[in-house]
Amino acid sequence: MAGNMDQELSEEINHVFEDIYASNDPNNDIIGETGNFAIDVQTRTPKSSKVWKLNYLEAAIYLQEGENNDKFYTHPRSHEALPAYQIAHNRWFHVLDLVAAVLVLLLAACERPAVDFLKLPVGVHGSLEILLLLVLSLELGIRMKWLGWKVYFHHPRTVMKTCMLCIMLTEAVVVLIRQTNHFRVTRALRPIFLLNSHYCRSVRRIARQTLQSLPPIFDMLVLLMFIMLIFSILGYYLFSTVPNNPYFATLKDSFISLFILLTTANYPDVMLPAYNDSRFAALFFIVYLAIELYFVMNLFLAVVYDTFSGFEKKKLRKLFFHKREGCRLAFKLLTTKKDQKLISLRAFLGILEYFRPDLSRKDGYLMFKALNTKKNGKLSLEEFYEIYDFCDLKWKSTSVEEELWSSNFRHPCNKIFKALYWFATWKWFDRVIYLIITANFVSILIETIQFSMKGMSVSSHTYNLSYTSIAFVCIYCVEAMIKVLGKGPLEYFTNGWDLFDFLVTILSLAGVLGEAYYDSFYYVTVLRPFRLLRLFKIKKRYRDVLGTLFMLMNRLSGLVIVIILVYYFFAIIAMEVYLNTDLTNCCKNTTVESYYAKSNVTQGYYYLNNFHNIFISGVTLFELTVVNNWYIIMEGYAHHVSEWSRLYFMCFYIVMMVVMNIVVAFVLELFLFRITYRRAMHLEDIDDHLKLTKEISLSVDEKHMCDQPDSIMLGDHIFNQAHSPDISTPLLYRGERTRSKEDFSLRMYQDEVMAWIQEENHEREDVISGLEEMRRHRRSTANSHNGIM
Amino acid sequence: MAGNMDQELSEEINHVFEDIYASNDPNNDIIGETGNFAIDVQTRTPKSSKVWKLNYLEAAIYLQEGENNDKFYTHPRSHEALPAYQIAHNRWFHVLDLVAAVLVLLLAACERPAVDFLKLPVGVHGSLEILLLLVLSLELGIRMKWLGWKVYFHHPRTVMKTCMLCIMLTEAVVVLIRQTNHFRVTRALRPIFLLNSHYCRSVRRIARQTLQSLPPIFDMLVLLMFIMLIFSILGYYLFSTVPNNPYFATLKDSFISLFILLTTANYPDVMLPAYNDSRFAALFFIVYLAIELYFVMNLFLAVVYDTFSGFEKKKLRKLFFHKREGCRLAFKLLTTKKDQKLISLRAFLGILEYFRPDLSRKDGYLMFKALNTKKNGKLSLEEFYEIYDFCDLKWKSTSVEEELWSSNFRHPCNKIFKALYWFATWKWFDRVIYLIITANFVSILIETIQFSMKGMSVSSHTYNLSYTSIAFVCIYCVEAMIKVLGKGPLEYFTNGWDLFDFLVTILSLAGVLGEAYYDSFYYVTVLRPFRLLRLFKIKKRYRDVLGTLFMLMNRLSGLVIVIILVYYFFAIIAMEVYLNTDLTNCCKNTTVESYYAKSNVTQGYYYLNNFHNIFISGVTLFELTVVNNWYIIMEGYAHHVSEWSRLYFMCFYIVMMVVMNIVVAFVLELFLFRITYRRAMHLEDIDDHLKLTKEISLSVDEKHMCDQPDSIMLGDHIFNQAHSPDISTPLLYRGERTRSKEDFSLRMYQDEVMAWIQEENHEREDVISGLEEMRRHRRSTANSHNGIM
Repeated sequence: MAGNMDQELSEEINHVFEDIYASNDPNNDIIGETGNFAIDVQTRTPKSSKVWKLNYLEAAIYLQEGENNDKFYTHPRSHEALPAYQIAHNRWFHVLDLVAAVLVLLLAACERPAVDFLKLPVGVHGSLEILLLLVLSLELGIRMKWLGWKVYFHHPRTVMKTCMLCIMLTEAVVVLIRQTNHFRVTRALRPIFLLNSHYCRSVRRIARQTLQSLPPIFDMLVLLMFIMLIFSILGYYLFSTVPNNPYFATLKDSFISLFILLTTANYPDVMLPAYNDSRFAALFFIVYLAIELYFVMNLFLAVVYDTFSGFEKKKLRKLFFHKREGCRLAFKLLTTKKDQKLISLRAFLGILEYFRPDLSRKDGYLMFKALNTKKNGKLSLEEFYEIYDFCDLKWKSTSVEEELWSSNFRHPCNKIFKALYWFATWKWFDRVIYLIITANFVSILIETIQFSMKGMSVSSHTYNLSYTSIAFVCIYCVEAMIKVLGKGPLEYFTNGWDLFDFLVTILSLAGVLGEAYYDSFYYVTVLRPFRLLRLFKIKKRYRDVLGTLFMLMNRLSGLVIVIILVYYFFAIIAMEVYLNTDLTNCCKNTTVESYYAKSNVTQGYYYLNNFHNIFISGVTLFELTVVNNWYIIMEGYAHHVSEWSRLYFMCFYIVMMVVMNIVVAFVLELFLFRITYRRAMHLEDIDDHLKLTKEISLSVDEKHMCDQPDSIMLGDHIFNQAHSPDISTPLLYRGERTRSKEDFSLRMYQDEVMAWIQEENHEREDVISGLEEMRRHRRSTANSHNGIM
Repeated sequence: MAGNMDQELSEEINHVFEDIYASNDPNNDIIGETGNFAIDVQTRTPKSSKVWKLNYLEAAIYLQEGENNDKFYTHPRSHEALPAYQIAHNRWFHVLDLVAAVLVLLLAACERPAVDFLKLPVGVHGSLEILLLLVLSLELGIRMKWLGWKVYFHHPRTVMKTCMLCIMLTEAVVVLIRQTNHFRVTRALRPIFLLNSHYCRSVRRIARQTLQSLPPIFDMLVLLMFIMLIFSILGYYLFSTVPNNPYFATLKDSFISLFILLTTANYPDVMLPAYNDSRFAALFFIVYLAIELYFVMNLFLAVVYDTFSGFEKKKLRKLFFHKREGCRLAFKLLTTKKDQKLISLRAFLGILEYFRPDLSRKDGYLMFKALNTKKNGKLSLEEFYEIYDFCDLKWKSTSVEEELWSSNFRHPCNKIFKALYWFATWKWFDRVIYLIITANFVSILIETIQFSMKGMSVSSHTYNLSYTSIAFVCIYCVEAMIKVLGKGPLEYFTNGWDLFDFLVTILSLAGVLGEAYYDSFYYVTVLRPFRLLRLFKIKKRYRDVLGTLFMLMNRLSGLVIVIILVYYFFAIIAMEVYLNTDLTNCCKNTTVESYYAKSNVTQGYYYLNNFHNIFISGVTLFELTVVNNWYIIMEGYAHHVSEWSRLYFMCFYIVMMVVMNIVVAFVLELFLFRITYRRAMHLEDIDDHLKLTKEISLSVDEKHMCDQPDSIMLGDHIFNQAHSPDISTPLLYRGERTRSKEDFSLRMYQDEVMAWIQEENHEREDVISGLEEMRRHRRSTANSHNGIM
């Protein structure tokens, strides 16, 4: 029965082919659906190849929008909007926008309060700012042109950016006119431009996720604060009578003390006066910390983790369907009037020309063949959905790849290099190297201990370059040389671990040379211990840990950028508010006096934690992030400037607590995902799945067709190969790319993804099944008439 | 076809029944398999009811072993071992053992260094200790009797306990003879006895899980330490030349500084001298903290969480199969020779008499009916497996339950009480109460703020009892009375939230009365704010949070006990090592001098953090757990006693880091489990699943049979009811119990559990399917001979 249907299907397909290839001129294909761009053109010359080209272009734009997660309502409406769209999506334009956004951020280093050696006159940095803001507004202008007023003001991100630009431009003009900086807190909002730029998509996504997880976090914060309030009333009643106890003197003191206690920064100190009074006072603090720090804060983490990973999945689903929608919109524009369900190779290559202009004809053909799982020479929508999986594959002929880089060398050389390759990849070679590294570590350790025992300070510089260290560096150089020559430069310099080895070796060499020639170059020796990180390749768990780091560097860096932007926001505010505040020797007669005394060289120096320029502010905010002793900085400003300063520091603490919880949730999620994935897929090592590979073999004819630029590309080779097994396909090509987190997630939640698709396709399936039912019914009645079972 | 088979099956079953009920005297049933206890007896009188009784007893013991997770190789071997086993598993014996184990722990408060008012002479506490140790060894003696030498020394926990007891008894005797305490660090191992006691099963389980997750944790610790070592070499080279920088003077200092920096306890201080020298020094510390604190420590948490939750599932599986094994072993002993696959009601009630002696005949019958899903009046092994689910159900007649407690009162009263019930459960009543509580909170807050603003210390006692507070307490009392009378005392005092309300109300009342009559009783007012925790019932997320707390109190308390035992271990060691060490005014000329100066009343008092008795040690260790400023205590002991003291404090830090990570993992796991469960089961509120309920209806005949103690219990009522729908079963009973975490897990991982069972049953299923195949074959050939389709 099934065989029968296949037979019928292939016959049907054959008919379709005959129809199409009979009129092989593309201009004879009647366009199935006309896109926005081509609609004007079509009215004049309905069958021209120009219409097809515009359709290809628009389809490519749909695919791009699907890929970039751009809303489809921002799709260019007409042929006129096209140039603006193309400029705005040009790579160089994106780079210009990014550079301007970064430079605007960096302006903070030159404006008052500036870094000393970067200080610029008001006129200069004011003009620079206007220039950069104009560059940034360029993008908006172009966007306006292509979107039209109505859509422009419907896109929230664009509206926000416009408002920001207006405010900042006004302020910059005011600064230029007055030739002096006023209280410019709005500078704190500059990160918005960076978030808006094309290359910061992942940063934007993390920022959005963080903002979205605020409501449940807020609930937990209320609980936290409520318990804190109850305990501060309790603490006030219990401990305000204790002598020498400034921590609970008033209700406000009590609340602040317990707020700081939540960070544990004042811990035993806040308890000790009361503890001195009665040993049972400890109970109050233990109960408070047990409830707030160990229970509620852990729940806080659980809530953050849960919300965050919940959003991850929702986002995955949304992106997945956005891409599918892009495919569907593009697909419609590629069909012919005759065949609304399949697109030809010609149309496919046409769209690729715009969507991935760097790909060769052969790459395109290989991709088409990879997509065409039904092997009928035409793509259905279901097959076309997979285009995002395959469009970034790098195709290589496997027959070439398996050879060594040195196999084309002359006779004696290639033998030698082959031996070197064998040696470089020999397992005992690696083991010996590890042994040497360990020995090096031990020798460095012993050297340093001896050094430190003798009490010789390094600056006194009686340190001579030891022969052992030279020997080790030599060994490393030899090792690197063997590997470069054996594996070939290309393979060596594209492997992360090898590259790390190489860099460390080069740095060690520089250090040794430095030691030999310059007396003051001794400190490069400290770089050597880093070499030892290589040891962590050996054990699987460490490979896992570092692998997680490397694999997800991209997403972690997004998080780091978000944190930097939050820092920037708070730094600008503090720089404006605490302008020209110097805490040296401040806070007389308070508990923090000694920390700010300039004479105190053992425990003091806290006056260094200030907001004198953007980088110093960054360090100060990092100290606040680490939380320990943060209250000393807070109290300094509270006593020297205003009690209300505490609000700033407490807000920063709460924001950083949320962000840090997200960091923890993030790392947890990534790491657990990796582990769960490995378990679900029954993998020994996730590295096996790091690459997505696809192998496609071509016949000689196909290769010939691809290589000749003027030959017509036809999909019927694929169809012929599927139906006559005699045609040999000896040329094997392998496509490879690195899997992203999204790929892993989609694979991991395979079942759920299938359920989503079914859900989405429900309506369409109803229609299709209705049609099929009808057809089957018709056929079965025909069969019964013919009497064939 | 299926109907046909059912017909046949029921006919077969009928035949079986006829066979059995024809000879209804239980002594006529031939025992299927004879247990260890009955084997001697059986040789003499193979059919006596004594053999049956011994079989019931042994089967009950198997079930008990399955429930308690006791190894089956410790099952009593013979009839002689039985009395010893029964004594050892007596409830009172368990309590005695637990009390002795706790008292041995508490002895530390009386021994040198003792709490002042608990100090006992050496002779007294030595004798007490010997007495308690003897009580503890009693259990071992009994165990020896019932296990025999061979098994005894195969059971690791028993062997360990024996060794500990020997050592401690010897030491106690030595103390008694010398009449003085020597250096008794072995006291630190006393927690082992508590871990060994019957009621601390969950504590033991957590301790075991913690120990098992050590290997992966150890790997991560090595990574942590390795990076720390590299950075300390680096830090030494970079900063040892900086003036006034004691933190990096030698390699050892450098390492210790970075170890403390990992806990952030010395954070900005350790950086500031170097930062003062060069602003770029901040980079070193930021990189170090980013790598160690924010990356590796988070991975540490991920590894701990992963291992911990992995063990949870493994343990679940193990317990599940252990219980099944127990059921299978018990089942075998309950079958008759004639019918090896089914057990009768009589046998079931027989085993219950030993397994749950408190259950009535009716409860037993209801349980049997609930288990018997096939409704054939006999239990198969598959049905019997469910016994653990049902054996703790509390059965109640629903017709009784639906009535109010007051419905039996006289005429006018019951109407009034019914109105009160309606009023107490009216939603607006609750809302008004919440409003009142909020108002009370605000009034307390305002009162306290006014108080604190006036600068009046509470001790000066110009505070008069305000009329508002009296009014609020009165309202609360009235509310409590309405609820008690409306809902009835039983319902009111068994509801957690109501009980909490009641306690807070009583305490508030006591506070008000105290204020009115005693001048010095003012501080009870501080109890009032706790009342406000009730507000958190309103919002779902808070209910979730507090619900998690209440629901899992049992398991969390296990974790708390483990932490207390770890504290005990470290406290005893510190008390022995730092005996008579007083740090007051110690550490002259060090960085921590000011903290220990007795004259310093603003920041000092650190000499209070010592190990002078077990409770003070506990507080000191808690301070070390909280981590902030822990290094001050460490440095104090390092300078005053020995440099090697640091080893103790660092070990404690690492142990507590692991334990605290487990706490975080634990809370995370419980909370996330709750959320995931709710999602998987599509529940609005997990509270809906908190209770496992089962409804069973009885006919009048059945109730009659159960109520008459001398009637013979027969399962054929169930069979008859299933086959003739005319028999009415008007008496509905509902069984209820609280679901444990295990129940939730088994439900949540339903699919996996099914897979486990299939895996386990594979062999047996093979056999069964083989038999069935054979039978079907025989039947079909018979049918074809008969010509019936």
